Amino acid sequence: MRVKMVVAYDGTNYCGWQIQPNGVTIEQKLNEALTDLLQEPIKVTGASRTDAGVHSLGNVCIFDTNTRMPAEKISYALNTRLPEDIVVQDSCQVPESFHPRFSKSRKTYEYRILNQKFRNPTRRLDTHFYYYDLDVEAMQRAAAYLVGEHDFKSFASTGGQAETSIRTIYSLDVEKRDSIITIRVKGNGFLYNMVRIIAGTLIKVGAGEILPEEIPAILEAKDRSAAGPTAPAKGLTMIGLEYEENPAN
Amino acid sequence: MRVKMVVAYDGTNYCGWQIQPNGVTIEQKLNEALTDLLQEPIKVTGASRTDAGVHSLGNVCIFDTNTRMPAEKISYALNTRLPEDIVVQDSCQVPESFHPRFSKSRKTYEYRILNQKFRNPTRRLDTHFYYYDLDVEAMQRAAAYLVGEHDFKSFASTGGQAETSIRTIYSLDVEKRDSIITIRVKGNGFLYNMVRIIAGTLIKVGAGEILPEEIPAILEAKDRSAAGPTAPAKGLTMIGLEYEENPAN
Repeated sequence: MRVKMVVAYDGTNYCGWQIQPNGVTIEQKLNEALTDLLQEPIKVTGASRTDAGVHSLGNVCIFDTNTRMPAEKISYALNTRLPEDIVVQDSCQVPESFHPRFSKSRKTYEYRILNQKFRNPTRRLDTHFYYYDLDVEAMQRAAAYLVGEHDFKSFASTGGQAETSIRTIYSLDVEKRDSIITIRVKGNGFLYNMVRIIAGTLIKVGAGEILPEEIPAILEAKDRSAAGPTAPAKGLTMIGLEYEENPAN
Repeated sequence: MRVKMVVAYDGTNYCGWQIQPNGVTIEQKLNEALTDLLQEPIKVTGASRTDAGVHSLGNVCIFDTNTRMPAEKISYALNTRLPEDIVVQDSCQVPESFHPRFSKSRKTYEYRILNQKFRNPTRRLDTHFYYYDLDVEAMQRAAAYLVGEHDFKSFASTGGQAETSIRTIYSLDVEKRDSIITIRVKGNGFLYNMVRIIAGTLIKVGAGEILPEEIPAILEAKDRSAAGPTAPAKGLTMIGLEYEENPAN
């Protein structure tokens, strides 16, 4: 059977999702724990191959197994074999046709900025610290220009494998609560580093270095150098994916 | 001059505030960094001697120094000498009569409970995970009985040095946002482990094991065994102190 899992992790101590020769990754930890639990070689396929330092509350992966263990029990058994910074939130059986990356979905990310004069040590791992006052209202106006279907080439790092740089952003909300500014973006897909470049650009807007009204021209340029910098990984959290046609959403 | 500092820290990797023979403490790290910075032996005196694993956003300490460095510059210079999980938020000169523990103040603490079916790895260090549904409304009704001046002997661990167990709680709010229940308490002082025992008791109320209406009898008993357990340290954060008569609040 094919099993879908929802996986949360603190990305601080990992070299990202995807297995690589040097460094420990989330994918590797899941493969090892599943192989140990199910006593057969298991390889997971993830929805979002998050970079080093990026966190997740709801990344999705699948794997195929011959086990007779009920799919919904696997999450509980697996969590006892995983380190405390990786926690499977849910596991369930899905059709063999389901693929976490190719099945259509709405993806939600949050980028968090700690905007105050001093660092907060208890939130140092999941926020990006920014000292100078940011103008949240300007950031909100800039964000509005990015909503909809656009060519986001200016907001993509090289190195991605996408065939087209056209994507749809359904919503892009900027909100400040206490000292934390949260940028919450929902879309049908994101290019390589796209959310972090949006965050880096909105920070420039909040700092007054880019005007909200300049965003359309930045999109138009279709040139990475037109947008702001890539904001640091640790401020980014993959919130979750909603699959359009899958019953086990 | 006497300098007052506001200190934030992630308590995870420390054996609490107070210097002790075995293990690294916040007080020790501050003394070392200040002695190095000011080139004279410095000993800080803290307001709240938080236990191992307890966090702070606004603990207060003082020290006396002969330095000619302006008091308000010390925080910036000190932060470059401190590990990233201890951050001084503010430093200023105060009268020699000011004492962080004996000067009258209002102290605020928060206890955070992650109340959902699975652990959240990104909040594993500053929340206490509780699997079963908690009845927040019952917790709020129970909390109301604790507000005011009471003898909190039932809510104190042995080992404290207080002369009386009478304290005043100005407010005790319980609120749920997303999956996190926050117990926020403000008072004129707290007995040893008092906030964690209040949290442990309110969790029992939320779980239906203690009725809100039983709280007056628990207070009346003046017996530690009448209240609920001491909730784990990592859920507790010292939010801050407001001094009644000090100008450099």
